[in-house]
Amino acid sequence: MDFALPPDLAALEARTAAFVREEVLPFEADPRRTAHGPTDDLRRDLVAKARAAGLLSPHVPKAWGGLGLSHLGKAVVFEAAGYSMLGPIALAIAAPDEGNMHLLAEVASEAQKARYLAPMAAGETRSCFLMTEPHPGAGADPSLLKTTAVKDGDDFVINGLKWLITGAEGAAFAIIMARTLVEGRDVGATMFLADLPAEGVRIVRALDTLDSSFTGGHAEVALETLRVPASDVLGAVGEGFRHAQARLVPARLTHCMRWLGAARRAHDIATDYAGRREAFGGTLLSHEGVGFMLADNEIDLHTTRLVIRHAAWLLDQGEKANVESSMVKVFASEAIFRIVDRSLQVLGGLGMTRDTEVERIFRDVRGFRIYDGPSEVHRWNIARRLARGAAVKALPEGRAA
Amino acid sequence: MDFALPPDLAALEARTAAFVREEVLPFEADPRRTAHGPTDDLRRDLVAKARAAGLLSPHVPKAWGGLGLSHLGKAVVFEAAGYSMLGPIALAIAAPDEGNMHLLAEVASEAQKARYLAPMAAGETRSCFLMTEPHPGAGADPSLLKTTAVKDGDDFVINGLKWLITGAEGAAFAIIMARTLVEGRDVGATMFLADLPAEGVRIVRALDTLDSSFTGGHAEVALETLRVPASDVLGAVGEGFRHAQARLVPARLTHCMRWLGAARRAHDIATDYAGRREAFGGTLLSHEGVGFMLADNEIDLHTTRLVIRHAAWLLDQGEKANVESSMVKVFASEAIFRIVDRSLQVLGGLGMTRDTEVERIFRDVRGFRIYDGPSEVHRWNIARRLARGAAVKALPEGRAA
Amino acid sequence: MDFALPPDLAALEARTAAFVREEVLPFEADPRRTAHGPTDDLRRDLVAKARAAGLLSPHVPKAWGGLGLSHLGKAVVFEAAGYSMLGPIALAIAAPDEGNMHLLAEVASEAQKARYLAPMAAGETRSCFLMTEPHPGAGADPSLLKTTAVKDGDDFVINGLKWLITGAEGAAFAIIMARTLVEGRDVGATMFLADLPAEGVRIVRALDTLDSSFTGGHAEVALETLRVPASDVLGAVGEGFRHAQARLVPARLTHCMRWLGAARRAHDIATDYAGRREAFGGTLLSHEGVGFMLADNEIDLHTTRLVIRHAAWLLDQGEKANVESSMVKVFASEAIFRIVDRSLQVLGGLGMTRDTEVERIFRDVRGFRIYDGPSEVHRWNIARRLARGAAVKALPEGRAA
Amino acid sequence: MDFALPPDLAALEARTAAFVREEVLPFEADPRRTAHGPTDDLRRDLVAKARAAGLLSPHVPKAWGGLGLSHLGKAVVFEAAGYSMLGPIALAIAAPDEGNMHLLAEVASEAQKARYLAPMAAGETRSCFLMTEPHPGAGADPSLLKTTAVKDGDDFVINGLKWLITGAEGAAFAIIMARTLVEGRDVGATMFLADLPAEGVRIVRALDTLDSSFTGGHAEVALETLRVPASDVLGAVGEGFRHAQARLVPARLTHCMRWLGAARRAHDIATDYAGRREAFGGTLLSHEGVGFMLADNEIDLHTTRLVIRHAAWLLDQGEKANVESSMVKVFASEAIFRIVDRSLQVLGGLGMTRDTEVERIFRDVRGFRIYDGPSEVHRWNIARRLARGAAVKALPEGRAA
Repeated sequence: MDFALPPDLAALEARTAAFVREEVLPFEADPRRTAHGPTDDLRRDLVAKARAAGLLSPHVPKAWGGLGLSHLGKAVVFEAAGYSMLGPIALAIAAPDEGNMHLLAEVASEAQKARYLAPMAAGETRSCFLMTEPHPGAGADPSLLKTTAVKDGDDFVINGLKWLITGAEGAAFAIIMARTLVEGRDVGATMFLADLPAEGVRIVRALDTLDSSFTGGHAEVALETLRVPASDVLGAVGEGFRHAQARLVPARLTHCMRWLGAARRAHDIATDYAGRREAFGGTLLSHEGVGFMLADNEIDLHTTRLVIRHAAWLLDQGEKANVESSMVKVFASEAIFRIVDRSLQVLGGLGMTRDTEVERIFRDVRGFRIYDGPSEVHRWNIARRLARGAAVKALPEGRAA
Repeated sequence: MDFALPPDLAALEARTAAFVREEVLPFEADPRRTAHGPTDDLRRDLVAKARAAGLLSPHVPKAWGGLGLSHLGKAVVFEAAGYSMLGPIALAIAAPDEGNMHLLAEVASEAQKARYLAPMAAGETRSCFLMTEPHPGAGADPSLLKTTAVKDGDDFVINGLKWLITGAEGAAFAIIMARTLVEGRDVGATMFLADLPAEGVRIVRALDTLDSSFTGGHAEVALETLRVPASDVLGAVGEGFRHAQARLVPARLTHCMRWLGAARRAHDIATDYAGRREAFGGTLLSHEGVGFMLADNEIDLHTTRLVIRHAAWLLDQGEKANVESSMVKVFASEAIFRIVDRSLQVLGGLGMTRDTEVERIFRDVRGFRIYDGPSEVHRWNIARRLARGAAVKALPEGRAA
Repeated sequence: MDFALPPDLAALEARTAAFVREEVLPFEADPRRTAHGPTDDLRRDLVAKARAAGLLSPHVPKAWGGLGLSHLGKAVVFEAAGYSMLGPIALAIAAPDEGNMHLLAEVASEAQKARYLAPMAAGETRSCFLMTEPHPGAGADPSLLKTTAVKDGDDFVINGLKWLITGAEGAAFAIIMARTLVEGRDVGATMFLADLPAEGVRIVRALDTLDSSFTGGHAEVALETLRVPASDVLGAVGEGFRHAQARLVPARLTHCMRWLGAARRAHDIATDYAGRREAFGGTLLSHEGVGFMLADNEIDLHTTRLVIRHAAWLLDQGEKANVESSMVKVFASEAIFRIVDRSLQVLGGLGMTRDTEVERIFRDVRGFRIYDGPSEVHRWNIARRLARGAAVKALPEGRAA
Repeated sequence: MDFALPPDLAALEARTAAFVREEVLPFEADPRRTAHGPTDDLRRDLVAKARAAGLLSPHVPKAWGGLGLSHLGKAVVFEAAGYSMLGPIALAIAAPDEGNMHLLAEVASEAQKARYLAPMAAGETRSCFLMTEPHPGAGADPSLLKTTAVKDGDDFVINGLKWLITGAEGAAFAIIMARTLVEGRDVGATMFLADLPAEGVRIVRALDTLDSSFTGGHAEVALETLRVPASDVLGAVGEGFRHAQARLVPARLTHCMRWLGAARRAHDIATDYAGRREAFGGTLLSHEGVGFMLADNEIDLHTTRLVIRHAAWLLDQGEKANVESSMVKVFASEAIFRIVDRSLQVLGGLGMTRDTEVERIFRDVRGFRIYDGPSEVHRWNIARRLARGAAVKALPEGRAA
């Protein structure tokens, strides 16, 4: 076992951290950060900075213009980028684009990659992923999928209602998940690609949400007799859930990575304040009541980083890491929420205001215990594995090595 | 011991609950709810409804136009009103006005009551309380008060910077806390009354904050050579902290009462949804993972209500209940946060959106673990009592009865 | 509402507290406290003290020699008695006797009361309750009852294996729960009375357990062709579960009452120590890290006392309080465990030793989160009520009064 | 970074696990496990098994007969050994011997190593570490050390009272910490070696404690004019605290390692039971209420293992890892307690009995949140580092590699 970072990755981490500090943080005061996320205009300014710094799309295979990072490499760089909520946008590693790029790189045809992946990797376009549906459709339980794609000649005709679609406004294309009917027979879920804007894709409304750091915000999207040629199927017909799985496990981890950076930011702001603010005869940090909270932050940050890196390493070894990634999702999302919540508490009234980034991080991070599977679904996933008697590959024990 | 409500109070509770349900809830979709709180226009519409229903200012002595509720009466009615974030605004029992009215009723001269309390009790005016200061001034530790009032002839001249001043924008008057200097000698803190707007009182900026349900929002306020005649001292010179204490303990409890109503609202929304939403083979509520969360909500609601009512009863018995109110503040603010957080979690993605009130309640309630003394300060208050060997009058034991 | 204790109850509480302090505490060093509980010899010495003090069997109807306390009265007196693990034994209000006396008073015939209740109320005898069975029989789920009682002429013949039977060793009689077969037909569960020792009742072994404060310890008991006449049916044939319910709800509360006293004891020991022990520049109590723990104890003690007294009052009003008692069981058992765990932590190494009573209380109290229904079963009970849409009568609201 | 175990270490882990399963578990029913720990007779039987299996003293340098494991190697092997509370005793890696051997290997002269380390590494002898004192002496705060060693010619004369001295009964020698006075001047704390039994070392009493798995139990030990020659100083005069530090950090980690194995054992027992025991319509494990608890166990086990191995690796890199080991101590001791507590809860009534090892593990593990520094002291250690502005080397970031 070796916990040391390879020097090149360490250097890339340092470079990313410096980039965020020097180039990204100044944008945090930019009025183009709206209640529905940064504008595309702001996004382009940020991307230009990352491009100039040679840090754009580090997760994308080199063939498509990225740095070709391993999962472990992503763990390190994404955390550094996440130190500002704008960092992942600058590097083009924000959700849902990052996961979509990963999916395209894994599943798309070469023609599809050229058409969709290349410009997105270059920071020119954005995308969205149309899976979630409002009640009574597919939420945490994807089997409830209500949207249908009916085979009609060489095309598919898609109808349905999607919801909480991040980045729909302004996206250049959509990946759409639909239950597929071929000659009246349900052949399973399929993923489709569709350029946007498109006839048949209507943004019903922008949703007002607790968070506000995703470019394009979140929307309700109606699919109304959207016609898609068979060539725009992503992967194979009926394999939508399998492909989704290929997207989900790594996407789950990259969320953890980025949020860990944001949690560190909140903690650093709180620690800095606690070291200066006087009350009751000393700095806040000199009081055990505050010091213990920040100590717990340190512990949560440390353990979270370790479990993320371990899971990333597992993926790099070719493991599916389904249950392991559930463990990381639960632990990281809850630990990170605790860190941010404590940081806000340490700041007191100041934490309630937008005078520091902590207020925003607090709002933004709450959803992380919900999306990509709420903690409850992941706990159940882990428990089912126990029920099957299968050993959770929690850590490399002898038998695993 | 008797846990039953007297019939008249039960009837008033039912009337308040019906009023909120029928008259207040429809206003929740009103666009006049801004990021800096409901507008005064919206407030006046709400107040008119409460006035018509005979529910305005239930906490104010009858002599000044209210219903003259006891503390226990407030515990019951304020919870019912708090079921909507707009309810307390309608009844004129929202912070900081409610606490200010209590303070005026306790401390003000009759002339001051006629001038300030009467119109506020009638729902015509609003007020603000200028105590908190930015770093390095008075936050959780009021002894760090930096604002000064210098005796100058028959007047006092006040200078200082205040911060997180709720409702300053649009308030008809301010209560100002300042360190008082008479002939160069610091004679302690004093409270002053000042009509607004006033020369010498400048709203530096509206603060962007996590919460958005206080009328007038929160502001930074500069006091610049504000001249106040001695007749506008509230209470006695040098007695500011003692008067603040008279305000703080009851105000702490009324916060708990209102928030308890809001927590019930979040819980009801979540329970209703969990009983309808299907996932993984049954309703959410049929899953232990969700059912246990809602069961914990029930437990937290129940215990919180009991401790609030007990402390209110203590005040009605003439007890100071300083430590007891600290216990209630810690328990209630943390239990209520848990309730709202669980409610949001049960709602899943829906909870992240403004499609239900839970998103707003979640944002609004976070500050409650901070204002009126963060949990840490109250825990320390309780611990110090233990250190002094004084029994905490936690519950009527024999020796107390 | 009125939270004040009536003066007579307050006086009885004070008398009980003084009795425990002066008469019971000295017995805590008695070597007759064995790993399987106090000996009957020690029990008799304690009972003699309570009898002399006029405090024996306060819960028993006056007609049967007790003080005829209401449920609320029990809440007050049992807590005072629980301040020592030996207090309830002295007053003859320890489990399972106290619950059994309640059951007999409610359900038994007059002849049965004279034979079983009277000597137990007089502190002369002890009893046991044979319900729980080892895997795969009835544990938390009583419907899995495996023990059978087969009607044979005027008798019933009982066979089965019982487990975790508190006080079996040395008990004068047993109440036995068995699935009843009449002419081959299962007519439901029935309760039977049986004098001990009896042919057909064999104590297989004393169980070594974490706790050690129940007289007679816990045993595994085999029922081997035990013949019981029909006149020894307790209540009605087939009504065993209904009768058990009549026992369970109050018994659940009396556990909470006694344990609350024990938790106060642990807290008092820890607070006293923390106020004397020096470390890192001050007493432990002067450190926020310790002070906050003890403050949380105070809060937990206070809220627990309130919810217990409220539920007792509900029972006194004739309510069944099934769900309410579940709420109290969950809250009290978990809060009390936290209190004791924190008290032990504050004591540090000393807490690990039998030099204070905290070590014993910690061992003894752990089971309380399990017996009388583990927290999980009670949470589910509460959740099911929510699923049925029935309002939990958590507190007297107007509609309840 | 590489999370894979090297094959030789994986093989040793597997061998240790098999040894515990096949050779050690059968001893768990041995009556020589007393309330004051396993007898030395039982210990010798266990050691003989480990010796035969080639697993004795794996942590000791090869020169002194051990396997010369690195810290990381210890993390792996000690966890496997800890799967039974008797495993570490068999391998001679239990506290306090393991830490004492480490200390001797680091600090002792060659003559001292030959005399004390060699026979202990061979499993022939045991030792004790006399540091902790009763109130008002040195507990969590070692600076309160009251025991004195007064230079008298070439000897030191030691007087004092020690407490909670693990393994004192039956130990072959003691390491004694005492404040040292040379010609009336306090020259700091010094460590001394003393053969046992010795005139001047009196075991006042065996302490009755919550735990019962340390050989020799815990004792109160009086040092009464114990005369020690200067040649028996361990390390240097006045360097006692520095030497203690060299012992403490690794010893803290080895506690975590062993306890992690015990926690896995408790979890495995609970999981096995939950998969078989039926209640309320399915196995316990099929209920989310239980499944979630076991899922949380998996998460806690996984994260704990990772932070332990990382800290061990840091030590192997030559880092002092003072704050890092504090983080591990807090996290591991609290996570492990949660695991064991949940395991007991899942077992229900069975968990309360000695019919499984969980009851013992629960008792034994509680002290781990206290000894080697209670959580509160370690949290403060972490907070102080933050206050000094020093970065916690929580994980290898670029700058660390």
